[in-house]
Amino acid sequence: MSTGISAEETAVYIGPDADDELAEVVRASGLRLGSLDDSSVVVWTGGQDGFPQLPATVRWVQLPSAGVEHWFDAGLVDAERTWTSAAGAYASTVAEHALALLLAGVRGLHAMAAWTSWRREEAFDLIGTLDGATVAVVGAGGVGRRLITSLAGLGARSVAVNRSGAAVAGATTTFGSSHLHEALSAADHVVVCAPATPETKHLIGAAELALLEPRSWVVNIARGSLIDHDALADAVASGRIGGAGLDVTEPEPLPDGHRLWSLDNVVITPHTANTPPLLRRAFAAHVAANLARYSAGQPLESVIDIEKKY
Amino acid sequence: MSTGISAEETAVYIGPDADDELAEVVRASGLRLGSLDDSSVVVWTGGQDGFPQLPATVRWVQLPSAGVEHWFDAGLVDAERTWTSAAGAYASTVAEHALALLLAGVRGLHAMAAWTSWRREEAFDLIGTLDGATVAVVGAGGVGRRLITSLAGLGARSVAVNRSGAAVAGATTTFGSSHLHEALSAADHVVVCAPATPETKHLIGAAELALLEPRSWVVNIARGSLIDHDALADAVASGRIGGAGLDVTEPEPLPDGHRLWSLDNVVITPHTANTPPLLRRAFAAHVAANLARYSAGQPLESVIDIEKKY
Repeated sequence: MSTGISAEETAVYIGPDADDELAEVVRASGLRLGSLDDSSVVVWTGGQDGFPQLPATVRWVQLPSAGVEHWFDAGLVDAERTWTSAAGAYASTVAEHALALLLAGVRGLHAMAAWTSWRREEAFDLIGTLDGATVAVVGAGGVGRRLITSLAGLGARSVAVNRSGAAVAGATTTFGSSHLHEALSAADHVVVCAPATPETKHLIGAAELALLEPRSWVVNIARGSLIDHDALADAVASGRIGGAGLDVTEPEPLPDGHRLWSLDNVVITPHTANTPPLLRRAFAAHVAANLARYSAGQPLESVIDIEKKY
Repeated sequence: MSTGISAEETAVYIGPDADDELAEVVRASGLRLGSLDDSSVVVWTGGQDGFPQLPATVRWVQLPSAGVEHWFDAGLVDAERTWTSAAGAYASTVAEHALALLLAGVRGLHAMAAWTSWRREEAFDLIGTLDGATVAVVGAGGVGRRLITSLAGLGARSVAVNRSGAAVAGATTTFGSSHLHEALSAADHVVVCAPATPETKHLIGAAELALLEPRSWVVNIARGSLIDHDALADAVASGRIGGAGLDVTEPEPLPDGHRLWSLDNVVITPHTANTPPLLRRAFAAHVAANLARYSAGQPLESVIDIEKKY
């Protein structure tokens, strides 16, 4: 992997389709648009299908997604050049979605949205507050860190969980991933924001859910594979936890008739923490920032680690 | 109305019922509990019914509600002594409820909570973001100011509307109440946090709703009288605005069969931005702070203005 990439006479290939917004970003960066054979930079806006054989002249590939496990599965990411993801680019709107799901659950809106009469006494039992509550934020990348800031503004404490246990700014306590159970024992609610890796598959299962409380909400805006969905459905159905807000599922899409669809205390959004219009705007801003760094010879943002696969 | 109330040998009457948590607050303040005839301070935990004739020796009455229009309607508030409301005491959890309702609407959760299949394409049209959006915060008391801070943390701009137009901290712009229409024209969404007074009755009506957009949400956590509910139902039903999140209604309780109950894009919570347990905790903290100020001869918090009636 090269460092100190030269920006002189750099051409940028945007594929698979021309994208006016990104073309304007390239021009605004002082670089020029090129063909694949002509370019040292590839900005890819599509999926794995149709991804081209890269000439050796391509020194940097910017992928459009924050999670890149599928790119590794497809054998596309190599050590011959620098690869960057869009990790962080979509953090603010994903963190907002996580907060919306958590607040909807804690405030009982998932239930009250369907009410057709003034059931005040019943509402008393459904409504809690994040003010003074403790939220375990599992995974403290861009989304987790942004969420921790928002939670603090609402008077909630955050306990962060990350790989190293190195203190996360704004968190009351940070636990390394081997201390996940301590974090969950200290928490009223859990938001899963960690990357999907072989190590994080079913990170939240029956044993972890047993550490929560009957009013606890579990929110997942990362990847479905991080939660054992059978254990989650059991925990919600039995009242061992308060409910779940899921933007991602396993499998995905969640098939019609899956028991999670039928549980009143489960809110599922169809992997739409970011929608295509919001993604396009955020990706363009990310590409602009990375092209500026490239031109200036500065380290790129969201460089993919070939060993860690994220 | 007296200032510089002496705290020496002060007794505090808590009524109508004994309340252990408040009694402990009084003792912790270094004051003593007394009968009504014996006390210069009344901390009232009930409603207007059963409120006693006050001896002249009572110099300060602490009421338990943030809005006090009913206490004026009942002719109970007089100029013979200082009266304080609980305005501000419940601000953080009410602001949290407002944010929860707004986020649920903007993120489409009011609809998706009831979905039983993976309707991804449809979700794209329902989901927006507060990041970069502008929210008109009508009424910039404790709740409004707290909400403005939370909105800023999510990347939203706030335009505040208050009586005077004096700049509100954190708001991009502040408009005086005579410029309400300018504020609404600049806004994507509206949150109503203003006190209920004769001047604010139906502050948001057909003309005001016409200034909003098809994706705009209107949230009311103040009093039902501030919004013309017929105009609101028309605006939602016709798609002129995106929807409404209401914790308060007119009339209240909203009767069974009212058209607002049947509109999919209206979320109604039964005046439960604060629930009794949350209220008790917050009121005790407010009383503690005011007793400390009283004992120290400092100005009390949330003194009621007899002219303005709030």
